[in-house]
Parts: sequence; structure tokens; C-alpha cells
Amino acid sequence: MLTLFDYGPSANCLKVRILLRQLGIEHERVETDIFAGESRRDGYVAMNPAGRTPALLLDDGRAIAESSAILLYLAEGSAFLPTDRIELAHAQQWLFFEQNLLEPNVGTARFWRLTGRDEQRPEAWTQRRESGEDALGILDRYLADHDFLVDGRYSVADIGLYGYTHVAHEAGIDMAGYPSIGPWLARVESTEGFANDLQPYPANARL
Amino acid sequence: MLTLFDYGPSANCLKVRILLRQLGIEHERVETDIFAGESRRDGYVAMNPAGRTPALLLDDGRAIAESSAILLYLAEGSAFLPTDRIELAHAQQWLFFEQNLLEPNVGTARFWRLTGRDEQRPEAWTQRRESGEDALGILDRYLADHDFLVDGRYSVADIGLYGYTHVAHEAGIDMAGYPSIGPWLARVESTEGFANDLQPYPANARL
Repeated sequence: MLTLFDYGPSANCLKVRILLRQLGIEHERVETDIFAGESRRDGYVAMNPAGRTPALLLDDGRAIAESSAILLYLAEGSAFLPTDRIELAHAQQWLFFEQNLLEPNVGTARFWRLTGRDEQRPEAWTQRRESGEDALGILDRYLADHDFLVDGRYSVADIGLYGYTHVAHEAGIDMAGYPSIGPWLARVESTEGFANDLQPYPANARL
Repeated sequence: MLTLFDYGPSANCLKVRILLRQLGIEHERVETDIFAGESRRDGYVAMNPAGRTPALLLDDGRAIAESSAILLYLAEGSAFLPTDRIELAHAQQWLFFEQNLLEPNVGTARFWRLTGRDEQRPEAWTQRRESGEDALGILDRYLADHDFLVDGRYSVADIGLYGYTHVAHEAGIDMAGYPSIGPWLARVESTEGFANDLQPYPANARL
């Protein structure tokens, strides 16, 4: 059986939880508290050199890390991944965009704000938030005339972008400036079997 | 024939140039000056909603953007992409790690330093550089006992990580702290058909 090393407050982990549920894949879940150092131990780093969550342990003892790589792996052969080679590339394109421009900025700005670090490094926080707004602007303009990100259908690309976009307001970003994002979030949330169980950061996240 | 919209000083673009050359794929190259706004025009944004380089225009009029998505697309069926499903996931894992933790930090810190922005936002620059050092530390520890990133063989994962790692010193990072990275860069550079033609940023990059 698959084992997911998972951290409740991580929207990267949430993405994998959403897909596992929509695919109906039975799995074991191991809560991995990154703030207690659980993802920095030798055994964990052997699974994921970056020492972060999520990581997916397979039956043969090998593991896959990085949320988007896990999404692509799990979705293969399902309706959540395009089969056309170019549409598949477009799904990967959006997932890379998210991990490169949206998550490092919206995700980081949100985490710092929720844990009080925005006040410790206000200039760095502002810069991350502003770059996050750029990323959301790109997404919003695209969604103005697209129901979903790839080929008019819900796919892992939508799951990947949903993760941090649906909590971008927690990064101090005014979402009123992105009128096409709200309706798309609602379309994502109305897909069959969708459930959002993102948990709040615990008090000991204030490191 | 494929058309690559390419910007000489971008290490993301360099990755695609390296692979196209090693695959021996004939293509047209269109120099796209991002600082002259060429990637923000409507025609370009239709190819790449994010308005960045590189973008690859295909024969049927569709396009693929994000350097790592282009690498995965071009490498399919070649020796530069693993065929085993889990090894393929590992190549994607490293490419997502690079775009998420290495490029946004090492790449951004380097760009700001080369264009004088490090002095305008010193706290934000320092934070990007420090996070970049974290990413390089993860890579260095992995390379201490691996010749290449996936399955002991050169692949698109190595090309993806090479891009900004080989210029990380230009971000003000002391590479002496990462003893396994230099020998790996040399192994990458000695693969057949490898050529590095990264160009310096032009004077008008100082925006």
C-alpha cells in the first residue's frame, strides 16, 4: 500500500490528498511534523533529499517527492492527466509555473504572515507578496476565458494551482483584483470527490 | 520546424539550448528581449501566459512554455529521459525542486546582483541568497554519493539543475562550501555535444 508522508497545514500536501481522494486510492498517511524536525531525519532524507513534505513511499521501497511530481505519477492513466502529448506538456507547464512563480511567493508570504515572520523581515515579505501578485495576475488573465487550465477540463494542473491560490488572501493579498479566480476555485471545488482539509499551522510553527 | 523564443542571458533558456543541441534537433531561434518588453506583447502571451522566455512554438501552431516542461517534451523517447515510470518521476522531482527552491532564490539573487538591485532591496536579496544556499546544500549532499541525479546517468534533470547552479557564484555565493557540486558540473560539461553559450545581461537589463 502507498504511504503518504503528509503535513496537515501544507497546501503542497493538500494537493496530493485531494488527488488521492478523487482517484480513490487507498493509502496509509503518516503525519510528518516538519517543525519538529521529522523531515530532517536520515531515514526521511533518504526518501526526499530536500527534507520536505509531501513524500510518497511506494510498495517497492522507492519514494517520490515534490508534490507536482507525485501528482503526475499518481494521475498517469487517469482522467486527471491529458493523454495528448502537447496537452500533457501544458499540464506540466502550469505545474512548473506554480512551483516557480506562485508557490515560492504566495506560499512563502502566507507562511511568514501566519507565523509572524512578515514583521521580522518586512522588505523580504513585501517582495514575496508583490511577486505573488504578479503570478496571480497571470493566472487571472488566463482564467478570464478558460474554465480550466488545460484543454477545457479539470486536471492535475488545476489541483496544483488551487493549492496556494485558494489561501492567497492569507498572504495579505486582496483577491478582489483577480475576478476570474474565485469562479474557477468554485469550479475546482465542485468536481466529483473534491474535499479540502487544509489544517491551520500549529503554535510551534512560530520558529 | 520548431521555433525557440530564446533570451541569451537566461539560464532557463540555456537549458533548452543545451538539450536541443545534444538531441541534434534543427530549429529556428528567435531572440526575445524580455527587457524590451518583447515577451509581454499579445502574440507572445498567447504562446506563454506568463510572458517569459523560453517558449517553444511547434509546427501545428501550439506552443509550450516553462523551461522544464520543454525539456520533458523534447527529451521524450531519447536517452535523456528515463523510461522507468519511477525514475521518470525522479527526474521530474529534481526539475520541480530546481524550479521551486533553487531558481527562485539562486536565480533571483544572481539577477539582482548583476543588475544592481541587490543594493536597492538588500534584505530581500539576502533572504533569496540564503534560501539559495539551502538549495545548493541539498544538491551538494545528494551529489556526495551520486554521479548524476537520476539512475546514475545524465538526464534532463542534470540539465535543469546545471542551469543556475553553474552560475551560483554570480549570486554572491561562496561555492567552496559545496565540494561535490564542482565535480558534477564537470561531469555534465563533459557529456557528448554539451555546449554552454550563456550570454551576459545587457546594460538595459538595469531596470
